[in-house]
Amino acid sequence: MAPDSARRLHGVVPPLVTPLDEHGDVDRASLERLVSFQLDAGVHGVFVGGSSGEIALLDTAQRRAAVEVVVGAVGGAVPVLVGAIDTGTRKVIEHARQAASLGADAVVVTAPFYVQPNDTEIVDHFRHVHAAVDAPVVAYDIPSAVHVGLSADVIAELAAEELVVALKDSSGDLAAFREVLRRTDLPALTGSELFADTAVQVGAAGIVPGLGNVDPHGYVRLYQAARAGEHRTAAREQDRLARLFRIVSVADRSRIGFTAGALGAFKAALAVRGVLAHPATNPPLGPLDAEETHTIAALLDEAGLGPVTAG
Amino acid sequence: MAPDSARRLHGVVPPLVTPLDEHGDVDRASLERLVSFQLDAGVHGVFVGGSSGEIALLDTAQRRAAVEVVVGAVGGAVPVLVGAIDTGTRKVIEHARQAASLGADAVVVTAPFYVQPNDTEIVDHFRHVHAAVDAPVVAYDIPSAVHVGLSADVIAELAAEELVVALKDSSGDLAAFREVLRRTDLPALTGSELFADTAVQVGAAGIVPGLGNVDPHGYVRLYQAARAGEHRTAAREQDRLARLFRIVSVADRSRIGFTAGALGAFKAALAVRGVLAHPATNPPLGPLDAEETHTIAALLDEAGLGPVTAG
Amino acid sequence: MAPDSARRLHGVVPPLVTPLDEHGDVDRASLERLVSFQLDAGVHGVFVGGSSGEIALLDTAQRRAAVEVVVGAVGGAVPVLVGAIDTGTRKVIEHARQAASLGADAVVVTAPFYVQPNDTEIVDHFRHVHAAVDAPVVAYDIPSAVHVGLSADVIAELAAEELVVALKDSSGDLAAFREVLRRTDLPALTGSELFADTAVQVGAAGIVPGLGNVDPHGYVRLYQAARAGEHRTAAREQDRLARLFRIVSVADRSRIGFTAGALGAFKAALAVRGVLAHPATNPPLGPLDAEETHTIAALLDEAGLGPVTAG
Amino acid sequence: MAPDSARRLHGVVPPLVTPLDEHGDVDRASLERLVSFQLDAGVHGVFVGGSSGEIALLDTAQRRAAVEVVVGAVGGAVPVLVGAIDTGTRKVIEHARQAASLGADAVVVTAPFYVQPNDTEIVDHFRHVHAAVDAPVVAYDIPSAVHVGLSADVIAELAAEELVVALKDSSGDLAAFREVLRRTDLPALTGSELFADTAVQVGAAGIVPGLGNVDPHGYVRLYQAARAGEHRTAAREQDRLARLFRIVSVADRSRIGFTAGALGAFKAALAVRGVLAHPATNPPLGPLDAEETHTIAALLDEAGLGPVTAG
Repeated sequence: MAPDSARRLHGVVPPLVTPLDEHGDVDRASLERLVSFQLDAGVHGVFVGGSSGEIALLDTAQRRAAVEVVVGAVGGAVPVLVGAIDTGTRKVIEHARQAASLGADAVVVTAPFYVQPNDTEIVDHFRHVHAAVDAPVVAYDIPSAVHVGLSADVIAELAAEELVVALKDSSGDLAAFREVLRRTDLPALTGSELFADTAVQVGAAGIVPGLGNVDPHGYVRLYQAARAGEHRTAAREQDRLARLFRIVSVADRSRIGFTAGALGAFKAALAVRGVLAHPATNPPLGPLDAEETHTIAALLDEAGLGPVTAG
Repeated sequence: MAPDSARRLHGVVPPLVTPLDEHGDVDRASLERLVSFQLDAGVHGVFVGGSSGEIALLDTAQRRAAVEVVVGAVGGAVPVLVGAIDTGTRKVIEHARQAASLGADAVVVTAPFYVQPNDTEIVDHFRHVHAAVDAPVVAYDIPSAVHVGLSADVIAELAAEELVVALKDSSGDLAAFREVLRRTDLPALTGSELFADTAVQVGAAGIVPGLGNVDPHGYVRLYQAARAGEHRTAAREQDRLARLFRIVSVADRSRIGFTAGALGAFKAALAVRGVLAHPATNPPLGPLDAEETHTIAALLDEAGLGPVTAG
Repeated sequence: MAPDSARRLHGVVPPLVTPLDEHGDVDRASLERLVSFQLDAGVHGVFVGGSSGEIALLDTAQRRAAVEVVVGAVGGAVPVLVGAIDTGTRKVIEHARQAASLGADAVVVTAPFYVQPNDTEIVDHFRHVHAAVDAPVVAYDIPSAVHVGLSADVIAELAAEELVVALKDSSGDLAAFREVLRRTDLPALTGSELFADTAVQVGAAGIVPGLGNVDPHGYVRLYQAARAGEHRTAAREQDRLARLFRIVSVADRSRIGFTAGALGAFKAALAVRGVLAHPATNPPLGPLDAEETHTIAALLDEAGLGPVTAG
Repeated sequence: MAPDSARRLHGVVPPLVTPLDEHGDVDRASLERLVSFQLDAGVHGVFVGGSSGEIALLDTAQRRAAVEVVVGAVGGAVPVLVGAIDTGTRKVIEHARQAASLGADAVVVTAPFYVQPNDTEIVDHFRHVHAAVDAPVVAYDIPSAVHVGLSADVIAELAAEELVVALKDSSGDLAAFREVLRRTDLPALTGSELFADTAVQVGAAGIVPGLGNVDPHGYVRLYQAARAGEHRTAAREQDRLARLFRIVSVADRSRIGFTAGALGAFKAALAVRGVLAHPATNPPLGPLDAEETHTIAALLDEAGLGPVTAG
């Protein structure tokens, strides 16, 4: 991503799932189909190695393969963001350098975790990453996963020191998101599947919806309507997508945890639509069963989503 | 560790800090001194790559160097446990295999994190690791870092399936610890610095105290007294160590977070005692400043701990 | 409130602070001035005995006095909601019956707390209150205070059984709020000071902003613009109010906790504006000091808010 | 309680359940039987209106009746502690004054809740209560219910200012409990059912076990053994009681929450043993069903607990 585009990251940037084959390796053909499907829908970027991409579960070979395939398949058409998400600064720098060397247009970095950092340490983390990595950095706020938030004060400091070029906010906290918009001119993208229309209307530069894997066309329509000030159209699209989002609650919670239920549902839906060959997820997250997949197929039907035909 | 010793892991097993030199690399000489200091004190094992060892902050080269140095310096005298701590199953297996190839007697594994697993997925995680790794596995319960606990039901299942050979419990929850002791015959080691005497008296096989880096002699005395039923002697030792543990609260919390305050204090104290050449910690955790180090030196004095002379 | 209006509770409904005199008793004259100030601004209802009204801190006499004064001062001009907020069902029923006897148009009820109820027990709580009390019930979701949320499933059940006539949502979770709007036709009011414009645009029936004590005119303008589809006007008003909301962060947190900082700021601002004679809060919450009050006065100035002249 | 005994509160002090009759009123005869049962077992005090006594669910008449019956039935034989547990200072003072007027030997007070106090406000709360109430105050740390803890610093301040005469610690945190013992000479009682033996061995003045309702003889034996330094005898008793404590996990969690499951189990067990006429709990907590009660009866059998014969 050229400096200019990096600074103005925008639009619909789905956090791609990482398709696996029957051996547990990255399914390159399925991942290429997923990229094509997204580009055909008109997305403005893609994010590989995010939470929806099972970044926390990928081994070294899987991580590398996923980035290579996506960078190759995108071919420069849109920016490719790559997650450099790990517990500590030096580990993040290792991932970020590899991502940059593989062609990432920007790397996406959370607060350190496991080590319970305070705000001073979080800012310092970004200072070290910024200094060590030759790629723009996007700050990623996802307290549900890392158990520490990026406060508005921290984000304002990251912006003031120009340590990051954008924010991905998956906090679910619209009030905090708007505070960032008021206090900085950082492009801010929401990770919310459920108030994406609102976020754009109040100033979000873009959206990074996990559900965008399944219905990129819907989120592109939503984004365009919201940008154009067509609030009712955007809200109608949002309502349809919110109903579709019920796929993440289909899995039996005694068998499959919350994260697996969401990731598994995205993959199951993409398999139903014919984009992925297999719905497999990495251990210890199990795939949905046949009955759950059937329910997901019904919810896809209800949302008007059928098989994907070649682009 | 031979199968028998693996199954009966016991005694004082300090989770070693990872000394760094002025370039941020592992300081091999300091780490060798630390191992000698521990062995001289009579510890029954060592744990490299744990939370106190900054496992979440070490890069690939640091992690490998730390394990190599410790395995070499221990020379088979006591079991060497190595942390294989990461967010997902496949990543843990990568670390665990490397640890085994470098000579680990056992690997230490937490629940997956970042991905918010449920109990079924946690057990499955250990099933996969057990099947893939040629080394005994120790389950590590540390909810403050991974934000999910190992319930007594999960631990009972791990024991029943013989997926792990021991438990390290850093939950701080003595009631839950005793439930494990009642329900399984798994050797259970407490990570508590502050009720280690009690834990041994109620049946803990051993203790894994971060503060043991600084005062291994104290914890060895405590362990021996508690095992011998000399409760008052053990309690007196525990009280002295609890007062010493105030070193973890010395750092200014606006500058240095909780984890850094504890790790930094262990390293600062070991530097004061002459075991480590430098008190440096990995970014983004900063070292304690001169005044804080002075306070720590005073607390060492109060606890009767002076410079360490060659063993 | 007649059944019809109860069912269509709407508009700006500020949760009134409870002014105290120098003896700690309810300052009736100040409370009457506050009601006049609110009615003059065009609010559509008032809520006495809410979180902003220090309901958790009022003794029996204070609670009764506050309701009597407000019911009298409002004189039927708008609906008066009264908090019946307590830990258990029978205690809530006691409060609710008293409120109804004093003229409340509706009572506002949270989930039980202290007792860690599950969803089944929460719904049952509302069933008992509904059956025992001769006044419409408004469900109040405020997990920051009661430490249990009203899930969308619980709210849907409350709506389906017609146990409540409206929802006040202070969860801060816009996605959950919109799910309620999709699944029920319950009038839903947001407690958010910071995305009130958005909430109305997506379907909120009204807003219950603590900051509305200080600037009811602003929230009335915001509400009217949002209802009229004038999004930019509403957003500009929202931005001004969000900047004014910084008054809740003025107090020194080592001296005054979060809740006290907010309540104290509302009262200090109303004293500066001449509506309240004293900014006193109930113990153990202390009032802001002179310097903090000075800062608040500056923020009022910046927001264009001067002394209130008689209505 | 005379000043001296107040300052040295000790021994087994069960937090009594509040028996209800078929109309939901306090069942005076059952409560008198419960007091006799406890006194016959040799308890050293009783606590009425605690968490196990459903204090959060009792209405005004129930609360008063429970205290009157217990004070009357105890007849000065042992100290009677009465809970003055509520969200705010003035409410607590109201309860505490009533308790004192009804004959309470001491009142038991938590941190304020709902209002998210900081440490300064918590200490100030106890200052106000101490100044306003003519009865000794016992500090009650129960973060699971009030969602704020009494830190060791707060407790040390309460002790230094002589605002309280004892601590009841239901935090479950043995390390923190021992810190209080090291830093103050306040009599500290543990609320733990599961490490009561250990708590006494490390210096607890007494124990306040909810399960003591069901098996006071067991806790008296445990206490006496622990005080006498007979650790194995105490541990054996503790193990038996820990197995009995499984009664709190019998209830179906989809129907009955955690608190109701525990309270309901205590009442069901006391009904099985013939001490209570009815196992009823206050709404919204439902009673256990027949099958659950049957399981509890089996656990009582296993623990060697049969019907209680008149004292």
